[in-house]
Amino acid sequence: MKILGIDPGSRITGYGILEVENLKLFTCLEGGAIRLLEPSFPKRLGQLFTRLREVIEHHQPTIMAIEQVFVHQNVQSALKLGHARGVAIAAASLSGLPVFEYAPRLVKKTVVGYGAAEKHQVQQMVKAVLNLNKLPQADCADALAIALCHAYHLPLLQKG
Amino acid sequence: MKILGIDPGSRITGYGILEVENLKLFTCLEGGAIRLLEPSFPKRLGQLFTRLREVIEHHQPTIMAIEQVFVHQNVQSALKLGHARGVAIAAASLSGLPVFEYAPRLVKKTVVGYGAAEKHQVQQMVKAVLNLNKLPQADCADALAIALCHAYHLPLLQKG
Repeated sequence: MKILGIDPGSRITGYGILEVENLKLFTCLEGGAIRLLEPSFPKRLGQLFTRLREVIEHHQPTIMAIEQVFVHQNVQSALKLGHARGVAIAAASLSGLPVFEYAPRLVKKTVVGYGAAEKHQVQQMVKAVLNLNKLPQADCADALAIALCHAYHLPLLQKG
Repeated sequence: MKILGIDPGSRITGYGILEVENLKLFTCLEGGAIRLLEPSFPKRLGQLFTRLREVIEHHQPTIMAIEQVFVHQNVQSALKLGHARGVAIAAASLSGLPVFEYAPRLVKKTVVGYGAAEKHQVQQMVKAVLNLNKLPQADCADALAIALCHAYHLPLLQKG
């Protein structure tokens, strides 16, 4: 199965496609950061939708995994993040993908072993687990970590 | 020209299509409330995108007008509203519509004459100005009020 992991933002959205075989062999098929360069926010949201649909079309993942968002200090940034996140979720849903959400601490705990892990620790662990030949960019690493978190939960989900 | 006014929400999104002739003759071509009944939030966001694209496809409006969102007491509801709003803005942007935003107080002041007007006052004024044969539902009235607010600003925009 293929998992699309995503870390949305109003300017940069990290994404990663993880292939899982026999619940334990993990391969990164593609990972990157979608940079939205249009000055207009509406156009950036449109671009995000189009790019994600292209990634989904190309790899045909089975599910999308995304971080849950809880409290944000700044209401304005919560609102902006909400816009990008809504677009990403709609793009996945319209492609028939179920969306799984994981709390940020759970993602770090599952992938790094420590819920308050720093960004660079996530990058290093993602590189090691997926046997990447270089350190993934931070947003891409976050997206791959979310996909990995879902992959690690698959045995539990399948039992339930 | 045709203006799409929209009042997004995570369960109900009001919308209205306003036709403007000679900057002063206003006709409501369609108005309603898109009720998202799916229990899953991702599916509701997908539905919202699809329904809005259908409305846009059908009426071919030139622009979309939407309320600006400032501070929200509750961060979680700001975030949810952000998701729906992001989807609506992406749908418009992907159809090539520019998006104009108006502050809620400005919409009420422009349409009702009073920035702190109550919902029912907005409904009554929208009914009167557009010569509707019944009181529009509240979310639909808000959407039509936003479209009207843009229509009233057209002479200023065209001078600029």
